Amino acid sequence: MGITVEDTRQVVAVDVGGTEIKAALVSVGPADAVPLRRRRRHTPRAAIAEGASAEEQAAAGTRTVELVVDAVHELIDELRAEATGPVHAAGVAVPGVVDEDRGIAVYSANLGWRDAPLRALLAARTDLPVVLGQDIRASGLAEARLGAARGCRDAVVLPIGTGIAAALLVDGRMLRGGGFAGEIGHVDIGHQERCACGAVGCVEAVASSAALARRYAARIGRPVSGAAEVAAAVQTGDPVAIAVWEDALDGLTRAILLLVTLLAPEVIVLGGGLALSGDLLVAPLRDRLAALISFQRVPVLRTAEFGDEAGCLGAALLAVGIQEDR
Amino acid sequence: MGITVEDTRQVVAVDVGGTEIKAALVSVGPADAVPLRRRRRHTPRAAIAEGASAEEQAAAGTRTVELVVDAVHELIDELRAEATGPVHAAGVAVPGVVDEDRGIAVYSANLGWRDAPLRALLAARTDLPVVLGQDIRASGLAEARLGAARGCRDAVVLPIGTGIAAALLVDGRMLRGGGFAGEIGHVDIGHQERCACGAVGCVEAVASSAALARRYAARIGRPVSGAAEVAAAVQTGDPVAIAVWEDALDGLTRAILLLVTLLAPEVIVLGGGLALSGDLLVAPLRDRLAALISFQRVPVLRTAEFGDEAGCLGAALLAVGIQEDR
Repeated sequence: MGITVEDTRQVVAVDVGGTEIKAALVSVGPADAVPLRRRRRHTPRAAIAEGASAEEQAAAGTRTVELVVDAVHELIDELRAEATGPVHAAGVAVPGVVDEDRGIAVYSANLGWRDAPLRALLAARTDLPVVLGQDIRASGLAEARLGAARGCRDAVVLPIGTGIAAALLVDGRMLRGGGFAGEIGHVDIGHQERCACGAVGCVEAVASSAALARRYAARIGRPVSGAAEVAAAVQTGDPVAIAVWEDALDGLTRAILLLVTLLAPEVIVLGGGLALSGDLLVAPLRDRLAALISFQRVPVLRTAEFGDEAGCLGAALLAVGIQEDR
Repeated sequence: MGITVEDTRQVVAVDVGGTEIKAALVSVGPADAVPLRRRRRHTPRAAIAEGASAEEQAAAGTRTVELVVDAVHELIDELRAEATGPVHAAGVAVPGVVDEDRGIAVYSANLGWRDAPLRALLAARTDLPVVLGQDIRASGLAEARLGAARGCRDAVVLPIGTGIAAALLVDGRMLRGGGFAGEIGHVDIGHQERCACGAVGCVEAVASSAALARRYAARIGRPVSGAAEVAAAVQTGDPVAIAVWEDALDGLTRAILLLVTLLAPEVIVLGGGLALSGDLLVAPLRDRLAALISFQRVPVLRTAEFGDEAGCLGAALLAVGIQEDR
């Protein structure tokens, strides 16, 4: 399938996450996107005092926008200085609700900003053209054009990390829904635990890697380092870890079945940290799904090809003007 | 918003349902689609003996295809004879999984056919160009271009009848998913009743008009004429009818919440027979939805503008080459 630029171009790509900013100088050619240099740093954010008022929270969000713009601008300059030729543009992916057409970061629960005109703020700091994207859709774009879903017209890319959201490729186009589409982590699957979003029963509250670590820690009475520790305990036969893992598998199965019934993807690409668990995750999901599907189109389940670099590679594709259509 | 033909054209539009075929001679102009003549007849189908083998069932499906092609062809000829000018084309909408591009009716549980090349079969019987569509997406197209969702880029049209499925308009395009998209009636909402599709917990099994009638009849121990009878009993305060109605409202609320979380429609158009219940349906759905939405985009709920004529009007739009894109 590949991509559609004719010549090879260098761009700076930035993926702003809730805890870390990943940036790379990327060479985008007709058939691939190759990171030439990489940078990572913590995502800066304004401190919020416990019990802060709504106004104080809004002010912190605005301050976080300034800090992030500074950090992204610095990364762009640093990587640009290392380029071996002209840099064509910068692509920046951010989390939450994003209006790509207007270049506005509409909302991020995690970073606390609202209606931040990130594209204009960054463009004012550099003479490069800046393209703003959303992290999940950017990851999906990379997997759909170059990775585990290449060649598919109907695919879902499902990163399972601190949160859970999906990039929905249908009929060859990435769905936006005004920037709100794809929040599969927040569908109700019928359990009684409360989610950070305020609702009860969300997939994310039992099946994200954060939920796995949190729920296992609560049951064994000590903190754990993350979902990988739960996975390791599952492999030693720890019944508590197995129970928590099963809950996550049940939740993910139900989420995937919803996606299959509504959107009929040919391929579902599992990404994020949890996908590193490989067959501890994918094989049982495949079995559970096979047992539940009735008339629906059966999807192929795969793990992501680009891991946590997908967002950055997707931002690089956006920077050379590759959109989600084909 | 309107549609995009420049002149006014007459077409024959046919909507093949599980029990009835609706057909019309329709005048499609730049801003509207007006039925000039209408015809209805029962949908013919081959009889299947109880306990028929898979081969016998397949043979009956093939025979039903022939009977339906005969009937549709007759309706086209009859309506064409009544036209006041040249007839431009015929648009035919059928239920189930449809491959619009190839003109093939891939599967209908209700009519028992598989991989029926309906467009080619009909084109062989008439010198008119024939366009094949799917009934739910055709209804959605009519409501999106001319009816209750006109002007929207993100909308869901949800006919609630014998079954439940949705036309999904996202970013101005109707989703197809290889013909499989939109089966919201078959998502699991956690109840224990079995659905005709073979799965347990489907929305359709408690919230379709057929389910309402069936579940009420089972509780009062006598047959009822349909969902309208249940609605009438609800209005007299019958506690059994109210309990069955509440189950349907709960199921529809959960289905709508899923659509809102995944696709973020601005407008949800409730259609089909159940939408005729008006405020017995829409007002409580609106209240329940408001109580459950957290961060999602809140949709406007409306009833369909074209009722059970939407499929026919959508088929007329398809006949003049209007697709779901804008």
